[in-house]
Amino acid sequence: MQETARDGQSVYLRAYEDFYHHTLKVTERNEPGLGHISWRASSKEALERRVKELEKSGAGKGWIDGDLGHGAAYQFVTPVPVRRLDHVNLMSSDVTRNKNFMMDELGFRLREHVVRNDGSEIGSWLSVSPLVHELAFMGDASTSEQGLGKLHHVAFWYGFPQHLHDLSEVLTENGIQIEAGPLKHGVSQAMCMYVIEPGGNRVELFGDSGYLIFDPDWKPVTWTEEQVERAIIFYGEPLPDTYFKYGTPNVQAPVVNK
Amino acid sequence: MQETARDGQSVYLRAYEDFYHHTLKVTERNEPGLGHISWRASSKEALERRVKELEKSGAGKGWIDGDLGHGAAYQFVTPVPVRRLDHVNLMSSDVTRNKNFMMDELGFRLREHVVRNDGSEIGSWLSVSPLVHELAFMGDASTSEQGLGKLHHVAFWYGFPQHLHDLSEVLTENGIQIEAGPLKHGVSQAMCMYVIEPGGNRVELFGDSGYLIFDPDWKPVTWTEEQVERAIIFYGEPLPDTYFKYGTPNVQAPVVNK
Amino acid sequence: MQETARDGQSVYLRAYEDFYHHTLKVTERNEPGLGHISWRASSKEALERRVKELEKSGAGKGWIDGDLGHGAAYQFVTPVPVRRLDHVNLMSSDVTRNKNFMMDELGFRLREHVVRNDGSEIGSWLSVSPLVHELAFMGDASTSEQGLGKLHHVAFWYGFPQHLHDLSEVLTENGIQIEAGPLKHGVSQAMCMYVIEPGGNRVELFGDSGYLIFDPDWKPVTWTEEQVERAIIFYGEPLPDTYFKYGTPNVQAPVVNK
Amino acid sequence: MQETARDGQSVYLRAYEDFYHHTLKVTERNEPGLGHISWRASSKEALERRVKELEKSGAGKGWIDGDLGHGAAYQFVTPVPVRRLDHVNLMSSDVTRNKNFMMDELGFRLREHVVRNDGSEIGSWLSVSPLVHELAFMGDASTSEQGLGKLHHVAFWYGFPQHLHDLSEVLTENGIQIEAGPLKHGVSQAMCMYVIEPGGNRVELFGDSGYLIFDPDWKPVTWTEEQVERAIIFYGEPLPDTYFKYGTPNVQAPVVNK
Repeated sequence: MQETARDGQSVYLRAYEDFYHHTLKVTERNEPGLGHISWRASSKEALERRVKELEKSGAGKGWIDGDLGHGAAYQFVTPVPVRRLDHVNLMSSDVTRNKNFMMDELGFRLREHVVRNDGSEIGSWLSVSPLVHELAFMGDASTSEQGLGKLHHVAFWYGFPQHLHDLSEVLTENGIQIEAGPLKHGVSQAMCMYVIEPGGNRVELFGDSGYLIFDPDWKPVTWTEEQVERAIIFYGEPLPDTYFKYGTPNVQAPVVNK
Repeated sequence: MQETARDGQSVYLRAYEDFYHHTLKVTERNEPGLGHISWRASSKEALERRVKELEKSGAGKGWIDGDLGHGAAYQFVTPVPVRRLDHVNLMSSDVTRNKNFMMDELGFRLREHVVRNDGSEIGSWLSVSPLVHELAFMGDASTSEQGLGKLHHVAFWYGFPQHLHDLSEVLTENGIQIEAGPLKHGVSQAMCMYVIEPGGNRVELFGDSGYLIFDPDWKPVTWTEEQVERAIIFYGEPLPDTYFKYGTPNVQAPVVNK
Repeated sequence: MQETARDGQSVYLRAYEDFYHHTLKVTERNEPGLGHISWRASSKEALERRVKELEKSGAGKGWIDGDLGHGAAYQFVTPVPVRRLDHVNLMSSDVTRNKNFMMDELGFRLREHVVRNDGSEIGSWLSVSPLVHELAFMGDASTSEQGLGKLHHVAFWYGFPQHLHDLSEVLTENGIQIEAGPLKHGVSQAMCMYVIEPGGNRVELFGDSGYLIFDPDWKPVTWTEEQVERAIIFYGEPLPDTYFKYGTPNVQAPVVNK
Repeated sequence: MQETARDGQSVYLRAYEDFYHHTLKVTERNEPGLGHISWRASSKEALERRVKELEKSGAGKGWIDGDLGHGAAYQFVTPVPVRRLDHVNLMSSDVTRNKNFMMDELGFRLREHVVRNDGSEIGSWLSVSPLVHELAFMGDASTSEQGLGKLHHVAFWYGFPQHLHDLSEVLTENGIQIEAGPLKHGVSQAMCMYVIEPGGNRVELFGDSGYLIFDPDWKPVTWTEEQVERAIIFYGEPLPDTYFKYGTPNVQAPVVNK
C-alpha cells in the first residue's frame, strides 16, 4: 500500500477502561480513512485455529512480526476489502458476504440485522461477546459499485446518557457539528451520538452499553425493510441523508483490487 | 363564546411540585385549543393595580366571581386574542404588540428575543420571576393574516434530562409520536422535548429549569435572524417544519373580533 | 478587623451562569473563614429603604465606597456576628434571632424550618426569590456559647445529579475526601454533596435547583425535632457527626463583640 | 429439605432485558432465604463436561427432570452449602474454598478480590463472561463458625445512576428503608444501592454495568485489607455494620451437613 511514503506521525490512544497499550492509532495522512482493524485471539491456539480457517478461505495475507503494542499477527482481507478506512462499522455493497465471512472464518455470531423484502440485508450486527456488536456492516446507499468498502464509524463507549448531553454542549460551544443525536438506537438499544472528527471520519459515542446477550441460543433479531428507521433510531430526529451515504474515504470510484 | 353548549367533562391536573388546586384544566371538546390562561396576582392590591391598567388599555372584560380553585378574577384579552387555544407559548402574527402589552399592562420583563434584520421580532420570552419565561410569543409562519392567535404549546417542568429519555422510551414503545427532542434550547438553555398530545395540542417537557435570572438590571439576550435555529435548538436535530407552523386550533381563517 | 495586615492575594471566581464580575472572592489567609457576604438591592431606592431599616435596628455599620465588582455599599452586622467566616449557610447559637433579623430588616421570607418540641428552631431556610433558600441558619451543636457565629457552607449550583457522581469520581481518584453525599435533602428537595475544600471551608454542590416557590402566600414547611434527619437527608446515608458541629473558623471560644 | 411441606405459592419474575421464562422465582415461606441458584450451560456437551467434573468432586447430587422454565438439570452443592439462602453474592466463612470450587469445577475466572495481610480472602468476585462478576463470595463477619452459608444479596441491573435516585425517592416516599447508597463500588466500578425487601432478603440494584473485561489474559485486581472499604465503596457514605454481618436466613447456628 506504500503507506509509509505518505504517512506522518502517529499517536496512540486508549480510553480509561481500556487495558491494552492502545485501542486507537491515529496516523497523520492527506485524507481520512482506515488503515487496519485488529482482533486479538483468546490464546495462541485460538489464533492458530483462525489462521488455518483464513488460509483455507484464501483471504489470508500472512504473518507480521508485530507492532507497537502487540506481538506476531496474521493479516487478512475481508471479501470486500476496506481499503484505507477503519473501524467497527463498515459500509459495503455486499453486507451478507461480509457477514458470512466473519461468521465462518472468525466465529462471529449474528445478533441483529435488517432484511429487505427480497431477502438481501441492509445491515448486520455481529459479536463474539455479550455485546450486541463489535462489528457491523451496513449497505452503502451512495453507490451500487461492487468492491467498494468504507469506514462508517468508530464507536467509543462514553458513559451515561447525561455525558452525551455534556459533550454536545461542549461541541456546540466550540462550533463543532454534531451529525446526529443524542438519540437511542433500536438495534442494541443503546444511547448514542455521531460526530465527524476534524479529519473527516465519523465517530460514534455510546451513552450506555446497550443490552447484553448471555443466551448461548440467541436468535438474531430481524427488522424488516419498513422498520429500518426505527432499527437505527428508536427515538430521536430523522437521520440526515449523509448518514446512509457518507463514509471515509469519501470516494465513489471502484476499488482496484491489490 | 357559547362554550358551554359544546363543552364536555373537565379534569383538573396538578404536577407534584405544584401547590394550587390545579394548574391545568382539560375540558372535553370537539377540537383542540385554548380556553383561557390565568395569572395570579401576589396580593389583592397588586390585582387592583393591574385591573386599573387593563381598564385603561381597553383590553379589560370585567370581573367574574371565580371558579373551582380560585376566587374573583378579572378577565382581559391580549391584543391579538387567543381564541380557544391555551397556554404559555403563543403564536401570533404580531409578536411585538403582544410583548409590549404584557410588559406595559402586567409588568412582565423581556428576557430573550429573536429580532429580524428589519427590527421586527420572531419571538419573545417574558417573565415576572427568575425563570427565563413564563410566557413566550412566537411568530406564526403559516400565515400573514393579522389577528390570528394560536396555542403553540404548554410546557411542564419534567425533572432531569434522563427523564426525557425515559419518557421517550415509554412513548416510543407505545407508538406515540415525539415531535422533537430531547434537545437543548439556546433560549433559556433548558433541555426539552415536544409531543403532540392525543387531543392535538403540543406539550413541551422541560428536563431542567434552564438558567435563572436574579439580576434586577438584566439586559435581554438578543438573537439575530441568522441565529434563530440556534436560539431554538442549541443542539439536537433540525426542528420539523411543523414546529413553526402548527398551532391549535389548527385553523387559518382570520379571527373575527368579538 | 485589620484584615489587610494578614491578607494575601485574592482571586475572583464566577460560575458559568453567574453574570456579575464575581460571585466568590477567595483571599489567602492563615485560617479558613468568612470575610463578608454581600446582597445586591434591586434598585437604588430599595437599597435606601433597607439602609433606613438597618439604621433603625442598630446593626448598621455605614457606607463604603465600593470594591472591585460593585459600587457604594452599606455594611451591617447580623445579630450574632459572623466574624471572619462566610457564606450562605451559617451556624449560630440562636437561629431564631438571626432568622427574625433577616426577615424584619431585609425582607427575607421563611420557606422551611425545623422546630424542636420546646418551640426553638434547629434550622431555618430563607429566601427573597423563588429559591427555597439563599440563606440558612443552623444551630451549632458543638457549643452552647452565645454569640459564636460560623460558616457552615457555601453552596454552588452544579448541574444535574449525574454531575455530582462525575465529580465524586474525580475527587475520589485524587484522594480528596467527600464529607457526605451525593444525597437528597428533605428541605428544598435538592440533590447535593459536601466537600471540605483544601483551605478547610465546607462547600456544598447542588445537583438541581430543588423545588421553586411561586406562591405569594407560601406557608413555611415545618419539620419536627424527630424529623430533623429526614429534613437534612431525604435519602442517603446518615450524616457524619462533623456535619452538625464543624464550621469555620473552627474555634469554640466565645466571640468578642466588636 | 422437605421444602414442599412449608412452601406456598410461587411467582416467576423476569426483568425487561431478560429473555428466559424467568430469572427469579419467589416462593412464599415462613422466613427469608435462598432455595437454589441455577446456571445454564452453553450446550448439552458443556453441561456434560461440567457434570463429569462435579461428579469427580463429590459435590454432585444428581439429575432432575427439569422445572417450569428449564429442562433436565444436574444438582450440586457448593462446598459450604448455601442451605436455604440464595443468589449471586453469598456470605461464607471460607471464601477461598468456595472460590476455588467455582473456578475448578465450573470454569469461573477470578476478576477481583480483597486479600488480608495473612493471605486469606475477605471477598472474591468471579465471572465466566465480560461482567466483573456473576457470583461473589464475601466473608461472614458475624460468625467464625464453619459451614454456614448465607445469601448476601441478589443484584439486578437497574438502568442508569439517575434511576437509582428515582427509586430512592419512591422508596423514601413510601417509608421503605434503603440500607446503603446510591454509591459507587470500587470492585466493578458500578453504581449501586441496597434495599432489604419486605421478606427480609437484601436486594442490590445496579445503576450501570460496571466495566467489562474482554481481555483473555485478565489479571485479577487485588485489594489489600486496608483497602477493603474503598473496594466496596469507591465513594459514598460508610456502609452500616449490618452490611458485613447480615445475610439470610439470619441464623447463626452451625449448618448440619446433609
